[in-house]
Amino acid sequence: MGRVTERRKVIRIRDGAVSTRPDTLVAEEPLEIRLNGKPLAITMRTPGDDFALAAGFLVSEGVLGEADELQNIVYCAGATVDGSNTYNIVDVRTAPGVVIPDITLERNVYTTSSCGLCGKASLDAVRTTARWKIDDTAGDTTPPVRLEPELLASLPDRLRAAQRVFDRTGGLHAAALFTEEGELLDIREDVGRHNAVDKLVGRALQNGTLPLSRTVLLVSGRASFELAQKAVMAGIPMLAAVSAPSSLAVDLAAETGLTLVGFLRGASMNVYAGEHRIALRAAAPQG
Amino acid sequence: MGRVTERRKVIRIRDGAVSTRPDTLVAEEPLEIRLNGKPLAITMRTPGDDFALAAGFLVSEGVLGEADELQNIVYCAGATVDGSNTYNIVDVRTAPGVVIPDITLERNVYTTSSCGLCGKASLDAVRTTARWKIDDTAGDTTPPVRLEPELLASLPDRLRAAQRVFDRTGGLHAAALFTEEGELLDIREDVGRHNAVDKLVGRALQNGTLPLSRTVLLVSGRASFELAQKAVMAGIPMLAAVSAPSSLAVDLAAETGLTLVGFLRGASMNVYAGEHRIALRAAAPQG
Repeated sequence: MGRVTERRKVIRIRDGAVSTRPDTLVAEEPLEIRLNGKPLAITMRTPGDDFALAAGFLVSEGVLGEADELQNIVYCAGATVDGSNTYNIVDVRTAPGVVIPDITLERNVYTTSSCGLCGKASLDAVRTTARWKIDDTAGDTTPPVRLEPELLASLPDRLRAAQRVFDRTGGLHAAALFTEEGELLDIREDVGRHNAVDKLVGRALQNGTLPLSRTVLLVSGRASFELAQKAVMAGIPMLAAVSAPSSLAVDLAAETGLTLVGFLRGASMNVYAGEHRIALRAAAPQG
Repeated sequence: MGRVTERRKVIRIRDGAVSTRPDTLVAEEPLEIRLNGKPLAITMRTPGDDFALAAGFLVSEGVLGEADELQNIVYCAGATVDGSNTYNIVDVRTAPGVVIPDITLERNVYTTSSCGLCGKASLDAVRTTARWKIDDTAGDTTPPVRLEPELLASLPDRLRAAQRVFDRTGGLHAAALFTEEGELLDIREDVGRHNAVDKLVGRALQNGTLPLSRTVLLVSGRASFELAQKAVMAGIPMLAAVSAPSSLAVDLAAETGLTLVGFLRGASMNVYAGEHRIALRAAAPQG
């Protein structure tokens, strides 16, 4: 059974001082919702209350409205490679006589692998579809991207200064692309966090600049699995977020070589993966 | 062509003083992305950069990687009732020879109405699938829900006090359900904002307490169309958000009778629709 939080190692940078410690992250795992046996939707969620999540989703979509329309909800017996149930697929059975409205309820569906639907399968799906490895060395001739923490710390202010619509509405997510020298290449704002990144990446495709192999992607909110996925798929070596990452975003970064920075605020930040791209200085010896 | 922002009337409450003025909201409209003529996904987005959004979406999904794989992107000629193009459907054509990976790329699809895909069609879809009108009067005998601004202003602190996981991870969205007296009925946290609300509503279905006709739903972030939709579908008469609403969330609230409060911070808040459920006092006359 999934847990609500997970522990991961994190490198903390506070005003230049570096320390390593375990950190508590919010857990993120896919949940596939089936209706009377038919796959309907996959959502990335925090495990727990899965039956309520599935039932509520179906209320929102107009399928359920009364408790007695719900016959039962069960976990499907999708097993991982080691034989344990992933508890990531639920099947909602409606009571006899309940008419299912004519709805098309389909969300982004990752292929369910042989190990059952689980975070690992989501990571595998990204790895198998990625066009480029995250490779910022161009063979052996170019050194990898490597940023000073001070430069990284200056990016959120540059993003805010360049946000035009947020100031008027307070209602937008922003994503910005910077060079390794901290130069702003592009910024997009959207009511949806994923859309802002899609717009940046789509412009790069149109301009013929994919993979974005020597850039930093900064997002104004949290770093979810899907945002890390988008960075990897565009060949971006570093994702920095103003807020917290999820467990699965960290796992994807560690597996693909993406540098993942979270809680980038003032002179502080946490490095969750790919720390070789951050110019860390050991903390000064005490005394 | 869609605009990035839209103007709506808003009632501002600041420390008890009430004023009415126009407010600038971030625009939200559906965008249907088609691949070689086949509907693939619908996303709620801020209009603008739609071709880049579609191209970037397809990069993230592993369909596109090079500019020359893209033949062209066009707006479909979906017309509104008054004959103008909605500019909310784009068709991405790949170049000859591009192999489309075997992907299942489907998202929540609202029925495309005869007026073309537009915000209005999204509103209509909610209205036609809603089980209950937002009706908190139970015939003529019960007065409608009516909250003092001071009570509303106290809810975010109660939500934060009840959040367990956020304190440890900083990575969770929260949704809480309160009675009209301000009593906390339930709170759910999730890495996904929609999931937190689905979990609340699903529990209510399981407990047989739908429609939630005398409750207030408080969300920790922004009020998007989809969150307003979930409130309406559960029969909740009041949605309050700590951050900004989108234009389409306000439109849905106005059309269905939902009270929508945004920027609920300290003793301040904005009322975007359904102000009859807020106990407003006129500002004291000057001088």
